[in-house]
Amino acid sequence: MVENIILTAMIYVLNGPNLNLLGLREPEVYGNETLQDVENLCRLTAEKSGVAICFFQSNIEGAMIDWIHDAIGKASAIVINPAAYSHTSISILDALQCFNGLVAEVHISNIHRRESFRHHSYVSLRADCVISGCGIAGYRIAIDFLAERLKSWHQEE
Amino acid sequence: MVENIILTAMIYVLNGPNLNLLGLREPEVYGNETLQDVENLCRLTAEKSGVAICFFQSNIEGAMIDWIHDAIGKASAIVINPAAYSHTSISILDALQCFNGLVAEVHISNIHRRESFRHHSYVSLRADCVISGCGIAGYRIAIDFLAERLKSWHQEE
Amino acid sequence: MVENIILTAMIYVLNGPNLNLLGLREPEVYGNETLQDVENLCRLTAEKSGVAICFFQSNIEGAMIDWIHDAIGKASAIVINPAAYSHTSISILDALQCFNGLVAEVHISNIHRRESFRHHSYVSLRADCVISGCGIAGYRIAIDFLAERLKSWHQEE
Amino acid sequence: MVENIILTAMIYVLNGPNLNLLGLREPEVYGNETLQDVENLCRLTAEKSGVAICFFQSNIEGAMIDWIHDAIGKASAIVINPAAYSHTSISILDALQCFNGLVAEVHISNIHRRESFRHHSYVSLRADCVISGCGIAGYRIAIDFLAERLKSWHQEE
Amino acid sequence: MVENIILTAMIYVLNGPNLNLLGLREPEVYGNETLQDVENLCRLTAEKSGVAICFFQSNIEGAMIDWIHDAIGKASAIVINPAAYSHTSISILDALQCFNGLVAEVHISNIHRRESFRHHSYVSLRADCVISGCGIAGYRIAIDFLAERLKSWHQEE
Amino acid sequence: MVENIILTAMIYVLNGPNLNLLGLREPEVYGNETLQDVENLCRLTAEKSGVAICFFQSNIEGAMIDWIHDAIGKASAIVINPAAYSHTSISILDALQCFNGLVAEVHISNIHRRESFRHHSYVSLRADCVISGCGIAGYRIAIDFLAERLKSWHQEE
Amino acid sequence: MVENIILTAMIYVLNGPNLNLLGLREPEVYGNETLQDVENLCRLTAEKSGVAICFFQSNIEGAMIDWIHDAIGKASAIVINPAAYSHTSISILDALQCFNGLVAEVHISNIHRRESFRHHSYVSLRADCVISGCGIAGYRIAIDFLAERLKSWHQEE
Amino acid sequence: MVENIILTAMIYVLNGPNLNLLGLREPEVYGNETLQDVENLCRLTAEKSGVAICFFQSNIEGAMIDWIHDAIGKASAIVINPAAYSHTSISILDALQCFNGLVAEVHISNIHRRESFRHHSYVSLRADCVISGCGIAGYRIAIDFLAERLKSWHQEE
Amino acid sequence: MVENIILTAMIYVLNGPNLNLLGLREPEVYGNETLQDVENLCRLTAEKSGVAICFFQSNIEGAMIDWIHDAIGKASAIVINPAAYSHTSISILDALQCFNGLVAEVHISNIHRRESFRHHSYVSLRADCVISGCGIAGYRIAIDFLAERLKSWHQEE
Amino acid sequence: MVENIILTAMIYVLNGPNLNLLGLREPEVYGNETLQDVENLCRLTAEKSGVAICFFQSNIEGAMIDWIHDAIGKASAIVINPAAYSHTSISILDALQCFNGLVAEVHISNIHRRESFRHHSYVSLRADCVISGCGIAGYRIAIDFLAERLKSWHQEE
Amino acid sequence: MVENIILTAMIYVLNGPNLNLLGLREPEVYGNETLQDVENLCRLTAEKSGVAICFFQSNIEGAMIDWIHDAIGKASAIVINPAAYSHTSISILDALQCFNGLVAEVHISNIHRRESFRHHSYVSLRADCVISGCGIAGYRIAIDFLAERLKSWHQEE
Amino acid sequence: MVENIILTAMIYVLNGPNLNLLGLREPEVYGNETLQDVENLCRLTAEKSGVAICFFQSNIEGAMIDWIHDAIGKASAIVINPAAYSHTSISILDALQCFNGLVAEVHISNIHRRESFRHHSYVSLRADCVISGCGIAGYRIAIDFLAERLKSWHQEE
Repeated sequence: MVENIILTAMIYVLNGPNLNLLGLREPEVYGNETLQDVENLCRLTAEKSGVAICFFQSNIEGAMIDWIHDAIGKASAIVINPAAYSHTSISILDALQCFNGLVAEVHISNIHRRESFRHHSYVSLRADCVISGCGIAGYRIAIDFLAERLKSWHQEE
Repeated sequence: MVENIILTAMIYVLNGPNLNLLGLREPEVYGNETLQDVENLCRLTAEKSGVAICFFQSNIEGAMIDWIHDAIGKASAIVINPAAYSHTSISILDALQCFNGLVAEVHISNIHRRESFRHHSYVSLRADCVISGCGIAGYRIAIDFLAERLKSWHQEE
Repeated sequence: MVENIILTAMIYVLNGPNLNLLGLREPEVYGNETLQDVENLCRLTAEKSGVAICFFQSNIEGAMIDWIHDAIGKASAIVINPAAYSHTSISILDALQCFNGLVAEVHISNIHRRESFRHHSYVSLRADCVISGCGIAGYRIAIDFLAERLKSWHQEE
Repeated sequence: MVENIILTAMIYVLNGPNLNLLGLREPEVYGNETLQDVENLCRLTAEKSGVAICFFQSNIEGAMIDWIHDAIGKASAIVINPAAYSHTSISILDALQCFNGLVAEVHISNIHRRESFRHHSYVSLRADCVISGCGIAGYRIAIDFLAERLKSWHQEE
Repeated sequence: MVENIILTAMIYVLNGPNLNLLGLREPEVYGNETLQDVENLCRLTAEKSGVAICFFQSNIEGAMIDWIHDAIGKASAIVINPAAYSHTSISILDALQCFNGLVAEVHISNIHRRESFRHHSYVSLRADCVISGCGIAGYRIAIDFLAERLKSWHQEE
Repeated sequence: MVENIILTAMIYVLNGPNLNLLGLREPEVYGNETLQDVENLCRLTAEKSGVAICFFQSNIEGAMIDWIHDAIGKASAIVINPAAYSHTSISILDALQCFNGLVAEVHISNIHRRESFRHHSYVSLRADCVISGCGIAGYRIAIDFLAERLKSWHQEE
Repeated sequence: MVENIILTAMIYVLNGPNLNLLGLREPEVYGNETLQDVENLCRLTAEKSGVAICFFQSNIEGAMIDWIHDAIGKASAIVINPAAYSHTSISILDALQCFNGLVAEVHISNIHRRESFRHHSYVSLRADCVISGCGIAGYRIAIDFLAERLKSWHQEE
Repeated sequence: MVENIILTAMIYVLNGPNLNLLGLREPEVYGNETLQDVENLCRLTAEKSGVAICFFQSNIEGAMIDWIHDAIGKASAIVINPAAYSHTSISILDALQCFNGLVAEVHISNIHRRESFRHHSYVSLRADCVISGCGIAGYRIAIDFLAERLKSWHQEE
Repeated sequence: MVENIILTAMIYVLNGPNLNLLGLREPEVYGNETLQDVENLCRLTAEKSGVAICFFQSNIEGAMIDWIHDAIGKASAIVINPAAYSHTSISILDALQCFNGLVAEVHISNIHRRESFRHHSYVSLRADCVISGCGIAGYRIAIDFLAERLKSWHQEE
Repeated sequence: MVENIILTAMIYVLNGPNLNLLGLREPEVYGNETLQDVENLCRLTAEKSGVAICFFQSNIEGAMIDWIHDAIGKASAIVINPAAYSHTSISILDALQCFNGLVAEVHISNIHRRESFRHHSYVSLRADCVISGCGIAGYRIAIDFLAERLKSWHQEE
Repeated sequence: MVENIILTAMIYVLNGPNLNLLGLREPEVYGNETLQDVENLCRLTAEKSGVAICFFQSNIEGAMIDWIHDAIGKASAIVINPAAYSHTSISILDALQCFNGLVAEVHISNIHRRESFRHHSYVSLRADCVISGCGIAGYRIAIDFLAERLKSWHQEE
Repeated sequence: MVENIILTAMIYVLNGPNLNLLGLREPEVYGNETLQDVENLCRLTAEKSGVAICFFQSNIEGAMIDWIHDAIGKASAIVINPAAYSHTSISILDALQCFNGLVAEVHISNIHRRESFRHHSYVSLRADCVISGCGIAGYRIAIDFLAERLKSWHQEE
């Protein structure tokens, strides 16, 4: 019974600017997999973990904010790869602070090994956990981790 | 006669990112009133002061710029609550510098009592006045102040 | 009944260094009105709002602290224009932190449009609201705002 | 033959926020010419140099990124005047790093003679050349320079 | 066959200062689980993933360096939770740069949400991935991730 | 004989801004004891240690300087709690450098556990010793320490 | 009865790097007394105050951490002179944050009168009180202060 | 005739904190002459130059501001040695900006050869000339220079 | 007629330190062309544009200043490649501020893509335009641009 | 007799870059007088004061150093206006530190009222006195001051 | 005779963290020679120079401090390669300040050509000489230099 | 044979500003030996090592650059003591980057024990090795080291 309810737990997966070009863009940094591959991986992981996902990407800061707003009341957790907006967007940080669920921040590459202006992330000030440098597997790790924590919360109730 | 003309003076009221969530978002900081309440308050104030208002909100930086551009030639003054874009948007500053009327910057909470990255506002470099920490009453104060100053300008001419 | 009690609510209005020269000093920045005009405006506003005021000015940091101490137990709110001490006095900040009522910080000009060493105010770390760049009307706005909030507090009790 | 092919070389000309107001905005800084004048100049120059151009403007950061993405595979070079986004947008920098052709950054005024927060440009980290302070002639210079370099590359092959 | 060889792949798990007090120390930050629980979790995870582990803890910077040296030639990957040495030890960074295998950096809490002197990690300059804020599950995630990547490397050979 | 002379050794005890409110002000930081309690404690300690004291408080920086000047030639040592002037007053530092005796700086709370602008003290550049965080017992400790050192100096002569 | 119990209260006295050379090292800064003299002074003071002490010194950061851990459950208070590790060791700060008793930080010289890199102490962020510049008498002052406070706590229970 | 009028030109000579101790205080820095010697020198110089002087000293920042206000309308020039307030007082800068006459800033020692926190002077932002390191002769130089410039202005009229 | 006069318009072309080694020095940064090639290009361009040029190079900062002085009254415009002196020479900036004509700053490589100490140029504070990263074609672009602007000025007169 | 010897005391007057253009260059900043006027003033002053002078100007940093070396053994004092080299030349500071006589630094304008990069002077670290903002009269003041001090030294011997 | 005595002069050679891996670690930076090669080179050099050496290595900061203490009274000079502790250890600096002999700091690579956090060395504040970038020959140079200076000191006595 | 060829290897020895005063200038810092002594030492060392030297000194930055250019093609290595230009000259760094041979930077005193503005050297960014604080023996060490390395390179070929 409880299992069934947990199956319907929803995780939003948000991808920021330029990620639509994944696989085309600087493959020596980001690898050859495309955003479609990421989505497939996320769906597969979600299925195994018994959660549902919604998967988005946009280059527009305001659209990301809209989606985060949309997650309120619909999702239990957000996986977000804010890409370059990590470093500049206080608005996305504010949007995430309106959301009461869990937040996992994912970066495909280890941002601390890149230019120094990529070392600081406003989103990390809100995130519950940060996974950086695991490649696209970071998405799978994030979903697994969130699913498990949601499940344990559920059981505690 | 002059009174009639002044009644048609127009003030644009612009609201930045996440303000559509007002009342839902961190009520211990922003209170329980919604953006609809803000709009009602502005309309009531404008009516009393004999000015007209247009009321906007957007999460998209570029849309705010478009609206500021739209105010040129149509409005005598702008009330702007730039929210998180206060701190990062030189583009909104530039847009405001294309506008020749009065500009009042409003923040619902006192931004100087929050995180240090909220202490600096690019918009303040252009604003004629800044009202911070008066809650949503800051909008009423700003409209009253602008209406009065516009009236006195009118009478000087 | 309640009305009568509210009429006796007291607001201290404190003015910092060089404000005794108002109207003489840099009129292109501060306008032509004198401190006497400010006091008259404050008294008129207070009368309309049903509050009492005490009005002070001093060039001496320690004297301002003494007055803030004096306000404890006597006043429900303070309007303070700390002038140049805004930027350098931690002692005035400490004094205000001993005061439990409302604090409104007023600057006649918009301090954010002046030299960079005027952009930071220690007093803002304690103030409930900040009104900057409204000219001497800022005092009227502050008193009106405080009177209204005091009234609403009173009614809540 | 080769000439014919070169004639079809494509240069994207991208204009950032507030440039739609060119000629109206701060004419003492930017002159009286409008964005239409800039486009006419670019088309004339392109015709003389034997290249084709596409000409864009947007106030929305994300739309600029989309256009840069659109240039991939279609254009040999980009002329970009990122306006205020120069100083804040890591996302546009990232988008340009996905583009393999030449990039010329143009500023109408000399940004180094303006406020210090305009001295740094993220886009310069990617640009092959930067032309600043030549007025709208900077666009013509950029197109001429790019056309010539493309021609010499072509001949080397 | 290949499976058997992979079973012998070795991962060193290093724990830095004060982690011997895990579960006793600031449980509101680090939770109630002890370092023994972490070790049990790591051993269980390793067994499932078909890798071997060595598990260490020390409060002495130089002892941690010795262990990293020891890993050279014996281990294929290191999981390191450098605790407070993350922020101050260039020597541990240098030691890790002598090691050719994979390095996963784990922090139990999200270090970006704590004091600012905990935001920078020298170890992140060398780490292949960083997992922060997943609680002690971060160790399991790291081992799983490394085991999988080692397996895929093996199969590519 | 010598004892008698030592009994007449004089220590000035200076208290800076807002300390007149001690016990009223932020008791969770400073405790419930008043400045009168501090004075009583100092007098009691002095009597036991065989020294005389003069006890002052002022909110005015310049008055504190006057008192330090007054100590020259009259006192063998100064105990000073400069409160907020610690962090901003080079003038008090200069005054203390005109004084040849011992200087003990006392802070009731540990200033290093408060806001960062309270971590630096100009007075510490001149003080012989600094006692911070011992509550009002810090005054007793300072007087005891100075009395003892004065006595040993006396005996060395 | 209570007295007897209080006699068994334990204070750990920890000394950091290079303090084993006390009396030999830079006597113009630290005086001629040796660490043995310090220990004798501490034992004498403890006896008078009715507390027990354990006295340590090490040049190894990790060994100091081990000793702080050892104090947990055994000691009611720690006196620590972290010497040069004051300025660089976040690990010792973390260790002290695992300890629930009182912490007194002692520096023999006034560190604020030395090189600027000695002005900041991580340990001060945790210490309950800081005593700097009283020579080796600082140890006696710290033990007396702690013993007294422990006694008053005891009596309150 | 003109000579007679010039004889009545008035110069205010203001001295800041601790200068009442001149000659007693750090004579290796400031020499052996007292403030009375300075006043005598100023009176003698003024007499020779045909100007009148008023000579003040205060340790209180606000009193210095009062005197500067007093100079308005009474004096043609101010000689000011702000001592330590040079480095911290924006209020004195503001007071001087209300004064329309000439301002000469004098420092007895060369402040650039002392601690770095003495290298910056707010008063220098307003002063017409700065004379530093000429000993007390700096006062004579300042009065001579101002008298001469006032005379030449007079003759130009 | 007017044409003839314009033919005699003079442009000074100044080259700073190490440019005499052009073509030998770091060809991957600066290309293979020598300073003689630059001079030839400039002469050819000048001839086509109907202006005269003087072409200089020196490694000595003061000699460059002498030449800028020499340009006063003789030249209508200066093209300057200040090389490394861009970043350190306030004296050359001052010299250029004595010159009333047009100033074009040229850098062969894009200085913003090199070490951070090359990102700031004092000369840019005075230059009318800056051309960076166009290779030696930057000289041709600068001369063409200046010649055209001089011609248009001439025609306006 | 002594008088005769003093007459032969030698003062070197050194002028830095761009001062050869004095009177031509930015007259609103530096006035209309030329360097020849400065030299005439210096010679006249020297004659009155009974000292000899040598007067130099160079735009070359190294030539200024040569002249300072030349002063060693020949001159008793140096008057130096280092112009823009004040802010950048450690080499001139070093040269002056080889000279044992008096050094007076002169700036025609008050450098503290100009751009911030002109506020710091390396030469001030060695100068005995600094005279800034007295126009060319600063040279006369410097020579008078030095002559007087040399005379008093002579008489003391 | 003297020769014999000098033969017994002792030099301690201390090596910091990770140097035990020399030859294995980043050979493109440090070369192929091992620490055993360094020791052999030092012994050979010492023999030729007529001095004795003791040769140490440790990865533990506190152990290095112990060895420096051990050198007191036993050694006339120390050669130290502090490796990464150069940049972080104030404790080692303090230990060296307890040692009265000569100190030579050696770095195998030129630390100024590496990451910026390796440019500053606390040890350099005490070292008599610093030799950086000479490879392992830096040890031979240091020993020769020290031996020679010790010999000349000896002969001066 | 090879020996003969090596004898003809050329090393340029360049000395920067104020070094012509060596032995006269601040002997407590630089010792009593003159630049002639340095030259003699260099010649003697070169002779022993079988290399030829050219020895220069100049106070002029540009002349030093000319000499470095002159070394190209003539010298195998450069010994440079840039004196104060170390800290300010990017131009000399650029000149050295045009030179393909070895570069040894020498400072007579240990620059890290002097003022902080002497701690950074642009030349160190290019130098192969840096020798600081060995007195004039630093020149001998540098020549020996370079000669040896050139010899070993020669033998490898």
